[in-house]
Amino acid sequence: MAVVDVTIVPVGTASASLSDYVAGCLKVLQGAEGITWQLTPMSTVIEGELDRVLTVIRQMHDQPFIKGAGRVVTTIRIDDRQDKTLTAAGKVAAVQAKLGEK
Amino acid sequence: MAVVDVTIVPVGTASASLSDYVAGCLKVLQGAEGITWQLTPMSTVIEGELDRVLTVIRQMHDQPFIKGAGRVVTTIRIDDRQDKTLTAAGKVAAVQAKLGEK
Amino acid sequence: MAVVDVTIVPVGTASASLSDYVAGCLKVLQGAEGITWQLTPMSTVIEGELDRVLTVIRQMHDQPFIKGAGRVVTTIRIDDRQDKTLTAAGKVAAVQAKLGEK
Amino acid sequence: MAVVDVTIVPVGTASASLSDYVAGCLKVLQGAEGITWQLTPMSTVIEGELDRVLTVIRQMHDQPFIKGAGRVVTTIRIDDRQDKTLTAAGKVAAVQAKLGEK
Repeated sequence: MAVVDVTIVPVGTASASLSDYVAGCLKVLQGAEGITWQLTPMSTVIEGELDRVLTVIRQMHDQPFIKGAGRVVTTIRIDDRQDKTLTAAGKVAAVQAKLGEK
Repeated sequence: MAVVDVTIVPVGTASASLSDYVAGCLKVLQGAEGITWQLTPMSTVIEGELDRVLTVIRQMHDQPFIKGAGRVVTTIRIDDRQDKTLTAAGKVAAVQAKLGEK
Repeated sequence: MAVVDVTIVPVGTASASLSDYVAGCLKVLQGAEGITWQLTPMSTVIEGELDRVLTVIRQMHDQPFIKGAGRVVTTIRIDDRQDKTLTAAGKVAAVQAKLGEK
Repeated sequence: MAVVDVTIVPVGTASASLSDYVAGCLKVLQGAEGITWQLTPMSTVIEGELDRVLTVIRQMHDQPFIKGAGRVVTTIRIDDRQDKTLTAAGKVAAVQAKLGEK
């Protein structure tokens, strides 16, 4: 299990608003099996087996082109831990526990 | 007002667990004026006037060195919109509204 | 054809020096067909058909685990342009031409 | 001394070509003291004292707005090593030396 975040930015879209494009990418996630995801203000966080997550992101990356974008800049950040189980909720909880102690 | 996210990764820490370092960085945010912030599974999202946000991030970046790290890799992503007001909550709401329509 | 850059950072490595890990990742590229690549001070730039590039990066991401790392943070940035041919050399040349004019 | 890379992407530019915007950002670097820089296919690498580098990047980030962009997405990656001297050329040379040995 890996925790991954992704941003997908179409370039040359005339409008500076990207929410319609982002929503189009998230439609791929709504139907996807084997992953969980959450939208944050700066990226979409996806949790699951790494190859499955990357397959889903590959489909997300294609969506702005389908909507007519000529260029897409996609950034994928993978946090992959094999020495123990890593989850999105566990990462946040571990920091919050440390923060509470201070 | 800009929406920014930041990740701060100390390198050469012996342990693969970073939550103690992340919590140390977030202590800077707890006392900071003029910004709002939220912790997400892959980064910390900070909202505020851009120069103020960057000043705070500069202080966060120093924290792992204070804890003994020899090397720190920090990534800052700035989303700055001057044609209309941009907020972290507004960004998420705009996408969710589009997603609901589909 | 897409232009992609990748950084692969093992976490919890005791030493702050990562060059041995980076070299291990680049060994994957040395044997890879269908791509060209170059090492820069902050990332490795890979050019090729996007699915091919992502397959190669997936192999690179596994290398630090083979060397004993418990956690790996990998960042992939994809610049994919379908309205015209995009190359690593062409991107740099386009900017340099504009810079020369100024 | 830190090694930093930066990408500056204007959003909503009508054209998918960004080289004119990138060149505008690099003009800031051409006149800047206390730093060295190089253009790579995916980012601009800047080397110097960290606060100086961040001041310069802050000016670069403003350039697309001056050219009329309504929104700018800027990504800054900082590699800061305090246990030994870090240089852009030294980072590449260290990896190449390891690669040659294999």
